[in-house]
Amino acid sequence: MTHAGPGRPRLHAPRRPGSTARAEILDAAAELFTTRGFSPTSTRSIAEAVGIRQASLYNHFATKNDILVALLEDTVEPTLDFDEKLDDALPADVRLCALAWFDTAQLSAGRWNLGALYHLPEVRTAPFDRFRHERLQLMERYRLLAAEIVGDGDPRTHLPFRIVESVIGMRADNGDIDAGLPEALATASLAVLGVSDLAAVSGAARALVVGVPDDLLESMNPQAAPHA
Amino acid sequence: MTHAGPGRPRLHAPRRPGSTARAEILDAAAELFTTRGFSPTSTRSIAEAVGIRQASLYNHFATKNDILVALLEDTVEPTLDFDEKLDDALPADVRLCALAWFDTAQLSAGRWNLGALYHLPEVRTAPFDRFRHERLQLMERYRLLAAEIVGDGDPRTHLPFRIVESVIGMRADNGDIDAGLPEALATASLAVLGVSDLAAVSGAARALVVGVPDDLLESMNPQAAPHA
Repeated sequence: MTHAGPGRPRLHAPRRPGSTARAEILDAAAELFTTRGFSPTSTRSIAEAVGIRQASLYNHFATKNDILVALLEDTVEPTLDFDEKLDDALPADVRLCALAWFDTAQLSAGRWNLGALYHLPEVRTAPFDRFRHERLQLMERYRLLAAEIVGDGDPRTHLPFRIVESVIGMRADNGDIDAGLPEALATASLAVLGVSDLAAVSGAARALVVGVPDDLLESMNPQAAPHA
Repeated sequence: MTHAGPGRPRLHAPRRPGSTARAEILDAAAELFTTRGFSPTSTRSIAEAVGIRQASLYNHFATKNDILVALLEDTVEPTLDFDEKLDDALPADVRLCALAWFDTAQLSAGRWNLGALYHLPEVRTAPFDRFRHERLQLMERYRLLAAEIVGDGDPRTHLPFRIVESVIGMRADNGDIDAGLPEALATASLAVLGVSDLAAVSGAARALVVGVPDDLLESMNPQAAPHA
């Protein structure tokens, strides 16, 4: 038996990615939610998949909703942090390209395709208020950067965010994602706005993405992470 | 009491869109699946929402899966029919633009955002084999038309299909869809491929979309249908 963090001793040795019981619970829940569905998955089945007692799971998460909240917030918060650190003095097209690149890499990288859960009916309820607010904040960042390029009333300002999120549908349909996808979608986000000098802008953006602190990128799957 | 098609007499007069009991069952199921979720919705609750007995519902659909199959196939079959009728002698960019325009209008038009159900775990099972095959067929049509424009190995060939399906995320996030969206997404599908003469191509495509037979377009919501 091993003992990791709060809660009872483990029934089994850890068998999932993650150095803590909390990380293992999140990984098991992400697998069950994306492969069997959120509604049919019980906290009991999550605990079983980790190899801990249900009571131990409750030491980490009070409800099944709380587990999904943590998983979904993890899909937007690293990108909001990355955006926060972008230099405002850089041209809008370079910032938008870097944001789209980082975000696509981030959405490609997790073991489970959590974006496929964004539109669950449950996510419209109160426990998910903060997640929905954060995702809207991110959507608005894309829109404002695009508006600096094509003007505020232009309907194309809504497209870059959608092009980036299309990685979610690609993963759901095809499973594996090509390592070049983050760059390809970042470039497509500019092409729909009529930006013509795509190679120069994407070259400048690449330098920003590969330069991010390791702690932001370390959760990324190496195959899917931006390549230098 | 009214009597519509096979099955027992109705408990109530019809109160949903659709001239037949089958259409009312589909509408009620689409509402419940998209607002409460597929897994928690029972055939009993669908029958109750229509105002018929559960036994009458089984005269139309043997299982809850069969209802979802019918709903999902309805989201791709009109577009496959439209594509089938496009003249092969037209330039690939005009055909791709018309396909994307019709498809976006079609995905915008239904009362319920059924595309949000494409990635349910249940849809990976055998009863949905034909639906998944049809959706892949459609995806391949987009890819082949894009390949005629940018070449077969180009990763951008995957983007037009994804840009069109982004209407599903927009509906899930914002509810109402702007009437200009089908044209905007059709044009964006070309812009990501580097097509430069967007106005001429989209003008030619518009004529193809407004010229389709009424029976293909009649199910569309007038606000969201392509405008002449």
